[in-house]
Amino acid sequence: MDLQSMLIRTIRVRNRQEPGVFGRLATAIGDQGATIGNISTVATTGTAILRDIGVLVNDEAHLDRLLAALGELPATTVLEVRDEVLEVHRGGKIRTVSRHPVGSINELRKVYTPGVAEVCLLLRDRPDLAHIYTGLSQSVAIVTNGTAILGLGNIGSVAGMPVMEGKAALMEQLGGMSGVPILLDTTDPVEIVKTVRHIAPSFGAILLEDIAAPDCFAIDEELRTSLDMPVFHDDQMGTAAVVLAAVINACKLAGRKIEEVEIGCIGLGAAGLSVATLLHDVAGRPILGADINPAALERHAGRGNTPSTLDEIMARADLVIATTGVRGLIKSEQVTPGQVILALSNPRPEISVADALGAGASVAADGAMVNNVLGFPGLLRGALEARARCYVPAMFRAAGLAIAAMAGEGELVPSPLDRRVHLAVTLAVARAAGEAGVARAPIDEEMLAETFGV
Amino acid sequence: MDLQSMLIRTIRVRNRQEPGVFGRLATAIGDQGATIGNISTVATTGTAILRDIGVLVNDEAHLDRLLAALGELPATTVLEVRDEVLEVHRGGKIRTVSRHPVGSINELRKVYTPGVAEVCLLLRDRPDLAHIYTGLSQSVAIVTNGTAILGLGNIGSVAGMPVMEGKAALMEQLGGMSGVPILLDTTDPVEIVKTVRHIAPSFGAILLEDIAAPDCFAIDEELRTSLDMPVFHDDQMGTAAVVLAAVINACKLAGRKIEEVEIGCIGLGAAGLSVATLLHDVAGRPILGADINPAALERHAGRGNTPSTLDEIMARADLVIATTGVRGLIKSEQVTPGQVILALSNPRPEISVADALGAGASVAADGAMVNNVLGFPGLLRGALEARARCYVPAMFRAAGLAIAAMAGEGELVPSPLDRRVHLAVTLAVARAAGEAGVARAPIDEEMLAETFGV
Repeated sequence: MDLQSMLIRTIRVRNRQEPGVFGRLATAIGDQGATIGNISTVATTGTAILRDIGVLVNDEAHLDRLLAALGELPATTVLEVRDEVLEVHRGGKIRTVSRHPVGSINELRKVYTPGVAEVCLLLRDRPDLAHIYTGLSQSVAIVTNGTAILGLGNIGSVAGMPVMEGKAALMEQLGGMSGVPILLDTTDPVEIVKTVRHIAPSFGAILLEDIAAPDCFAIDEELRTSLDMPVFHDDQMGTAAVVLAAVINACKLAGRKIEEVEIGCIGLGAAGLSVATLLHDVAGRPILGADINPAALERHAGRGNTPSTLDEIMARADLVIATTGVRGLIKSEQVTPGQVILALSNPRPEISVADALGAGASVAADGAMVNNVLGFPGLLRGALEARARCYVPAMFRAAGLAIAAMAGEGELVPSPLDRRVHLAVTLAVARAAGEAGVARAPIDEEMLAETFGV
Repeated sequence: MDLQSMLIRTIRVRNRQEPGVFGRLATAIGDQGATIGNISTVATTGTAILRDIGVLVNDEAHLDRLLAALGELPATTVLEVRDEVLEVHRGGKIRTVSRHPVGSINELRKVYTPGVAEVCLLLRDRPDLAHIYTGLSQSVAIVTNGTAILGLGNIGSVAGMPVMEGKAALMEQLGGMSGVPILLDTTDPVEIVKTVRHIAPSFGAILLEDIAAPDCFAIDEELRTSLDMPVFHDDQMGTAAVVLAAVINACKLAGRKIEEVEIGCIGLGAAGLSVATLLHDVAGRPILGADINPAALERHAGRGNTPSTLDEIMARADLVIATTGVRGLIKSEQVTPGQVILALSNPRPEISVADALGAGASVAADGAMVNNVLGFPGLLRGALEARARCYVPAMFRAAGLAIAAMAGEGELVPSPLDRRVHLAVTLAVARAAGEAGVARAPIDEEMLAETFGV
């Protein structure tokens, strides 16, 4: 059950045109524990209203129970249940397009032979111009071996394609970049490193994605040190940057200073270990960490942090960050009143926001809210704009601070669909690259703002 | 000089508004041996006309001579010389885009988390559905090691990017597919095979591109036999399919049967060897072949063809196909009256069309006309539509026949910008896959015609 994802469905209903019918329908959906999404009116007649109602349910059995309950409403008829998620995926979510129409021989000659030869010869003599006369400076490989797709585990790289395509779609929509999913047929870290190095000239940056610990540590480390380009594993430093933003604002909401807050990380996999490392760096004090795997605890200690246990963290920490992938791991009775709880496992948190708040947490959030989509577009675009040789920790720190600063009053994090957020992260990351001396190009902040439409 | 490409420039001129001025300008350009491309009127005043004139020149020195000649025209002033090829390449020629807008939380939930998890789990249980719910069935890797970019030689994979992007742009414009350039940092055939196999799950088909002989033979062979998907090297079988079309129509123009014509291939590299092999297959008789490399002659003989020499081929063959990359290799005095000459090296042929015809050739063509762009879009799309397990020679043969059939009266080959050509090749290739028993899906010919807008 923990591995099951939530299902999104659209239910088309015909309601009799009478007061209270829609209210009873909405109540029935809520009574079944389903979440209501978008509602749109499809048509009205004198006596009836057709509506499409988006719902989020736990699984097929939950959907069946919901439909049975709706079947008992006297003035409502369910006409259809649609899976719009599957429809959106039909044919894939991304495509490669030509930036110029090729409709005439004149255009063909410029885009292809014989014109193209001039540009090839220019790049032979001036390889540094490739970032201007090819798409390399906007192109990002999204590399996975399929071993840790979302919280679903090792389901293989092809089954992970919808996630990779989703990231590519968001890279374009939120950051104006070209994402290219690379699905590997091997889980051998040595082969992965060799393969990615062999194809690295095709891209401006490399995003490692959903690669399970502990292999992800060696793969990330090897590629970062051997390639002269920006590389990061989103589940490590991408998550860390976004969590940093949430922690900063949680401290602000709680009226505490980050340097004085006891922070505990439950789960020290790819995400937890990196979160603890970045928070240690920013807070200037050791972070408590718990994991069932002794090797994970050792890695945590090796980075100057403090091995602990789930029970101790729940009892002692002011701020708890859980990234275990284990649904329901944290019980309500373990929550200390006033505690901040970020239970980030996707799609199922360690404790629901409602349960955490009900148990006395002062602030609670899950992975749907504190999500990597806040970070990776700007982290990549910023590094590409600066033509950074590599990432340094200051760039992830800058991203976290920029995300935190864009949140509204009383919010932990801003909306991921606000393009100003991604521009702010881009600028912060590019500036940090410049300050750290790893940038190869100055950034044009005004032109950048224009390309973000901000 | 043979490595130099032709240059395309746009010259903006102001002509006095007098009879004969434009004619003298056009004559001056022709006198300098430059080719005139598109001409557009930019503005007119009572006394002058501004025009943009596209020209094709051999090199910078040639351009200088042309500009000097134009400078002597009394009623014409050159205002500007623009490099529009470079402009078209600025920022690259392709980009990855989302097929759906992601502007609301509702859309984000469908394209990304939590909705995406449902599709991942579906593909975990039903990997065969990946061709429906991901973009895999339209996605083509364009793989090069940079060792034989156009006729420019081993200039490296990054310098070859404009060609790979050009192919990707044409794949979209002419075949509705998503091309992904993969630039390799290695020229070791064993490493290339391993790397391509490791990333193969990311794509529906693999196009090898501009890989020099003899390595291309082993790489192509290894990948074709070890991967359960369509793989071909465009410089081998892609070229062969298009040349087959030209040969069929050349025979028709000459009033000869292909079975009775003596055919000679000068140059037995990637292209020449495959051309000879496919023509042997279709004509049912050995093809003469010449190469300065004894190993190439051996490969040619090993495929049942006849080793020969340049002189013998020029003296004996009714139809000569040159793919040597050596500009001007064939002298006018070597041409036998009535011979068909296809001098295909790009960007510089072994003998110009004008010289060949002047020396008595009955039909002559170069690589600008008999170009791979006629073949690869349909070869790929046809294999993808049929979900072919592999290519078989019958598919290339079918492509050649389909291209030949689309040429107009008196033409060797049709226009590469005619979408009906690419639809015809797609259908022929998909049908051939079905007949050969390598197809995994029936094709919907009507729907396919619709997607080609034909």
